[in-house]
Amino acid sequence: MTKYVGKNIPRLDGYDKATGRGLYTTDVNLPHMLHAAVLRSPYAHAKVVSIDVSEAEKMDGVVAIATRDNTPRTYFNVTASMILTVPPAKPVLDQQIFPDVVRYIGDEVAAVAAETLEIAKEAIKKIKVVYEELPAVYDVEEAMKDGAPQVQPDFSPGNNLCGGVIKIRQGDVDAAWDEGEVYAEHTMYLPRVKQAQLETHGAVASYNPDGNLKVYSTTQTPYPCKVIIATVFGMPSSYVRVKNPPHVGGGFGVRIGISAKAELIASALSIIAKRPVKYIYSREEDFLASDTRHGGLIKCRLAAKKDGTFVALDAKACMNTGAYATFGPDLVAVLGACGIAGIYGIPNIRYDGHAIYTNQQTAGAFRGYGTPQGTIATEMCVDSIAKQLGMDALELRLKNTTRVGADWWFPYPVKSTYLNECLEQCAESIGWKEKRGKKQTGTIRRGVGIACGTHVSNAAPFCVDYDAAYMRIESDGTLHVASSIPEIGPGVTTGLLQIAAETVGVPLETSRLAYGDTDVGPFDIGSHASRTLYAVGHLFVKIGKELKKQILEWAAKFLYVDVETLDLVDGEIIGSCEKSRLCIKPMPLGELAYEAHLRGKQFLVHGCEVPPNSPPWHAHAAEVEVDMETGMVKVLKVAAAHDVGVAINPVLVEGQIEGAVAMGVGYAIREEMTYEEGKGFYNDSYHKYMLPTMDEMPEIDTIIVDAFDPAGPYGAKGIGECGLVPTAPAIISAVEDAIGIRFYEMPMTPGRVLKKIKEVYGDDLENL
Amino acid sequence: MTKYVGKNIPRLDGYDKATGRGLYTTDVNLPHMLHAAVLRSPYAHAKVVSIDVSEAEKMDGVVAIATRDNTPRTYFNVTASMILTVPPAKPVLDQQIFPDVVRYIGDEVAAVAAETLEIAKEAIKKIKVVYEELPAVYDVEEAMKDGAPQVQPDFSPGNNLCGGVIKIRQGDVDAAWDEGEVYAEHTMYLPRVKQAQLETHGAVASYNPDGNLKVYSTTQTPYPCKVIIATVFGMPSSYVRVKNPPHVGGGFGVRIGISAKAELIASALSIIAKRPVKYIYSREEDFLASDTRHGGLIKCRLAAKKDGTFVALDAKACMNTGAYATFGPDLVAVLGACGIAGIYGIPNIRYDGHAIYTNQQTAGAFRGYGTPQGTIATEMCVDSIAKQLGMDALELRLKNTTRVGADWWFPYPVKSTYLNECLEQCAESIGWKEKRGKKQTGTIRRGVGIACGTHVSNAAPFCVDYDAAYMRIESDGTLHVASSIPEIGPGVTTGLLQIAAETVGVPLETSRLAYGDTDVGPFDIGSHASRTLYAVGHLFVKIGKELKKQILEWAAKFLYVDVETLDLVDGEIIGSCEKSRLCIKPMPLGELAYEAHLRGKQFLVHGCEVPPNSPPWHAHAAEVEVDMETGMVKVLKVAAAHDVGVAINPVLVEGQIEGAVAMGVGYAIREEMTYEEGKGFYNDSYHKYMLPTMDEMPEIDTIIVDAFDPAGPYGAKGIGECGLVPTAPAIISAVEDAIGIRFYEMPMTPGRVLKKIKEVYGDDLENL
Repeated sequence: MTKYVGKNIPRLDGYDKATGRGLYTTDVNLPHMLHAAVLRSPYAHAKVVSIDVSEAEKMDGVVAIATRDNTPRTYFNVTASMILTVPPAKPVLDQQIFPDVVRYIGDEVAAVAAETLEIAKEAIKKIKVVYEELPAVYDVEEAMKDGAPQVQPDFSPGNNLCGGVIKIRQGDVDAAWDEGEVYAEHTMYLPRVKQAQLETHGAVASYNPDGNLKVYSTTQTPYPCKVIIATVFGMPSSYVRVKNPPHVGGGFGVRIGISAKAELIASALSIIAKRPVKYIYSREEDFLASDTRHGGLIKCRLAAKKDGTFVALDAKACMNTGAYATFGPDLVAVLGACGIAGIYGIPNIRYDGHAIYTNQQTAGAFRGYGTPQGTIATEMCVDSIAKQLGMDALELRLKNTTRVGADWWFPYPVKSTYLNECLEQCAESIGWKEKRGKKQTGTIRRGVGIACGTHVSNAAPFCVDYDAAYMRIESDGTLHVASSIPEIGPGVTTGLLQIAAETVGVPLETSRLAYGDTDVGPFDIGSHASRTLYAVGHLFVKIGKELKKQILEWAAKFLYVDVETLDLVDGEIIGSCEKSRLCIKPMPLGELAYEAHLRGKQFLVHGCEVPPNSPPWHAHAAEVEVDMETGMVKVLKVAAAHDVGVAINPVLVEGQIEGAVAMGVGYAIREEMTYEEGKGFYNDSYHKYMLPTMDEMPEIDTIIVDAFDPAGPYGAKGIGECGLVPTAPAIISAVEDAIGIRFYEMPMTPGRVLKKIKEVYGDDLENL
Repeated sequence: MTKYVGKNIPRLDGYDKATGRGLYTTDVNLPHMLHAAVLRSPYAHAKVVSIDVSEAEKMDGVVAIATRDNTPRTYFNVTASMILTVPPAKPVLDQQIFPDVVRYIGDEVAAVAAETLEIAKEAIKKIKVVYEELPAVYDVEEAMKDGAPQVQPDFSPGNNLCGGVIKIRQGDVDAAWDEGEVYAEHTMYLPRVKQAQLETHGAVASYNPDGNLKVYSTTQTPYPCKVIIATVFGMPSSYVRVKNPPHVGGGFGVRIGISAKAELIASALSIIAKRPVKYIYSREEDFLASDTRHGGLIKCRLAAKKDGTFVALDAKACMNTGAYATFGPDLVAVLGACGIAGIYGIPNIRYDGHAIYTNQQTAGAFRGYGTPQGTIATEMCVDSIAKQLGMDALELRLKNTTRVGADWWFPYPVKSTYLNECLEQCAESIGWKEKRGKKQTGTIRRGVGIACGTHVSNAAPFCVDYDAAYMRIESDGTLHVASSIPEIGPGVTTGLLQIAAETVGVPLETSRLAYGDTDVGPFDIGSHASRTLYAVGHLFVKIGKELKKQILEWAAKFLYVDVETLDLVDGEIIGSCEKSRLCIKPMPLGELAYEAHLRGKQFLVHGCEVPPNSPPWHAHAAEVEVDMETGMVKVLKVAAAHDVGVAINPVLVEGQIEGAVAMGVGYAIREEMTYEEGKGFYNDSYHKYMLPTMDEMPEIDTIIVDAFDPAGPYGAKGIGECGLVPTAPAIISAVEDAIGIRFYEMPMTPGRVLKKIKEVYGDDLENL
């Protein structure tokens, strides 16, 4: 029986967020603080010949101007790659604060710090830059051709390949291919989409000429952010402090590492000005000059036996990683591993992943980190096999899913999977048996679809992944936990405190977690890879047990009893009635802690641990309505069934699933960053970027299946990204069920859908 | 050989302080912050019959008004007593935020938080309070009489005694008394003096209705401050965070625990207003409503043999602790222990200490914490014995000083004392042999005097005293240390980092200490009792060694060598040439730390430790000039010789001695808080309080004697308070040497001196 684990504890940051009282980076104001604006390239590819800042410098209120001429030339990667990448993989360090060659429309050329933001913006206009334009390339297939313009000749072996080909091999696809009796094959074209998190990137940097640099920022990985800043500026890592203020308005992967270049630009200007500098990305800058999801194409083919058994899967991904690597190579690895190689038990798998440089803004981490893209490609093959075999798409999946103990590519074992339960329960919820394959006629046609997937509960083996933390008991017996993890919105700090209080045996109400500050906690790799609750929770269980043991051992000595007779329950030291006099009257921990304090003892532990990894599993079923006259797809319902192991806080898990489903709906039918040659991406605001609104939101049935993972803390697994993984393929599948057309290009906007309908059904919609 | 210990490393907070860039509490501004003002009692003793805030509440801009009616009635003590006192001593908790009975002119009645400080001050004037005046008592001797007005009837057994009689007993004074052959006896009258630290008390409290309370403050003990706040407001200690901003403009004991009531009043208002509140004491409030040094009287008598051997010492102190206990009882204990019982090896000692309540502002901790008062009383007896015996006052001291291994009252051993070296070296510097006892004539007369003393290197056994801290190596090999100690000015954070870097074996230049924040470090009792460098340094040596061991053990495994062959020197792993291949090429710690990081390992330790205690020793010789016509005493030179064990940073030690000598000069000849009945203390500003200025400063010869303490970190002992201890008695002794008059009342102001001169020499100064 647990007291806090598994309970719907209201999120601890709720008051701040509901009342607007909570502080975000933009709310941080330091004495003598300056404001920054950035000059960005109007060219997709150009050499920066010269930069003349003399006019700007003369302006009243301009305090510092940063260009390539007075800032470090160190090569880095805005993502945490340099401290994340596991050897033998090597991080691609291809960025500079202000490069000599600008590689996309929006690339950074100079920055100004001034007394007001208005002055900084005016000053930017007065900087005179001479560019020498270079040929540019935007499309993945074009970029891979011989003779294509080379975006990063110094970091690419040719053909704009970034970071080498990522290969996953299992069995022998070529040898096994002919064992197949039925084959699916397609190329999936996927759009760029944007995280569009509520809070734009931002940082307030305060450099002290004594050598210390303190940075408030929107990063979702305070500690890696600190390391990147220290590396770029050649400072001792111990002198750099990064903290969230503490709130961060969403992350979704876009600020793993640093927040685009916010921290670096604010820091560079602060170092020059010797005053604090605030740099907050405008919404336009956030949309156009920070990582997106990777678009690109995935070729995928699947061989199966007539009974539906999958024999071999062969895939190749060519993803548009834009002008700089950021997470490109790492991401195409996860795309293949989780999106292609992980879902089904297939003896022969071959995957070649390519991250391709182009002269567009960078693509990087975005909730799901490649897994949604790979899952779409895989699931479309599965639907194709089912159709060819005349087999139920649900049955085919149930037959092939990865099983406990599977011999798979990943270095960690499958200790639990309830994927088939997920499939069955979401199918049940959507009315699969009644609705699937029912012939539709008329203008409004309905269909149901299903898809499933897996992901990770932390970033290993793709990245270094570990956490350290402190726990202590205050002299009044209350629990204080300290970690440098951020809270970027999911409520994970609440879930983690539930785990800590549960493990130590103290009331949650008097326990607190200090977080989001690299001076408060030791190393922590941060919030990403659906890892925070799982990995940090795993550490909290470990050190929570150590803390409890330390308390009980001290109590046993103090009370002259055997430690075995004691327990700590709900903030009281209790004794077993057979063996301990404490059976009669429990001793409040506050009293024990005070006695310990009087004797110079604080109950105090630290821990540093590499977590295990446990794949979470998930299946979504969708019901859609397609308007044959307008091409409009409406998602009526998504039944989202998840194996998250034990849900530490079910309502927070539901929140994660619902939010991710919304993103998945957008991905399937609305969202797309549209590039206009010579102008750049069209979508520079919420106004121009088609996020789903309340009107587009389907009914969502979140189903947390009864599950338990032996490796996870209290049986839990990751959840943060999972809801996005199978949403789009389930919707594609449902659209096919409704109108008989499978889309290989996303999103399924009315224009694209109507075009296909006309191709298939002819122009005369009267005939429908 | 050490690399950093013993070196004059420039203080790390120097840049901030020299440039004015450093942030103090008054510089903290939070969004939506309010400003507070406090209504104080105009009566020395009165019952608060009623408080009418209705007019004040109506004012535009007034947001919250706090009185006894809407704030906790919890009894507390503004000092850290409640977490400091060692059983069986009990803390005297006799204060409330707003009491029902005001007990001194300045006692707190109500507080207002408003949009501006001006509005808050106006609103204060509109609060209508009905008082019922009570009889008051101001003088210690009056207060101890039967029938005197009782200041704290609920906390005093009668006669205004606060916290019981503090007794120190060694041998049998009554039995041994007649063994004496020569006797000294006197009563010393000592003034109240004020710390007059540069930064007034202040706090910015930010209460969040989610239960968290964050307080920026001027406290010199962040962690105890946090515990007091949590106790007063009945909050979980884990929910209260106290931090310095990080700078604090001096302490000198006046803000051990909380900063007068700054933190409590700001917090009370913030809890009511649900907005941040800043409350900064005006200079007037700081002077008139926070602890002073204890004035009062000390009766002291000493019996000695004809050869100068001290036989018995008998003393009784009656100190004016003012309206509330604060540190009264604890302080009279130290007065007796260090000021009376500690300096000389005397087989029979009796001391009775009394802290006496009066209707004046409170007296509490002030640099030296009672030791200066006790030392004056003791040293005057010693001078008297010397005079009676016709023995050199230096020789008499050298003969009687406490020796290594002495059987003394304190529970910790004397492992080292270089007091005789201190005596000899300061005497040498002042020209003792040539100048002492030389008959003076004329208007300007010169004399030299000497005095010595001892103190503590931490607060044990008078208080709970321990520290906890963290140390870690960042992934670039740099050292990060975290503690909740403050930096109140002595530069101790620099000294501590020297100790840490030295112990771990890494460059100081890349090491950092994070401090002054209860979320950053675990429990630490704070800066007081000359303890910080000694006690925290002791812990840093312990955990620094553990960290080094952890690093070397990991390195040994990583490098496939025996750990015994490795060492960490100046940031490099080196091997012994006989046994390790690292002999050829050292491995930078940064590379090792990065390799460890890639494997999920951060080098990380914590520690929690009760320090030993080592008495520091000190002797000062003073030369003065007395103007027989004006009574003006001018201190020409102070030779200050100190046994601080090994000086970790000599220039910082010198700074401590010089600053304390200045305070000692003020104590001897200028400073005094003067009470005017019905009005309160006259001295409410620097203008009215006679601190010594540059004009009064003597030449100071700081002599750090060559010493080493086996218990201290790198042989060091405490220094923070010591320079104040023997300064005043050395000056009194020098004045006697100059004009033949020993003063039993301080300070030796021109008026007081001239009066005595006239008494002794007659009115006709022409006769001199």
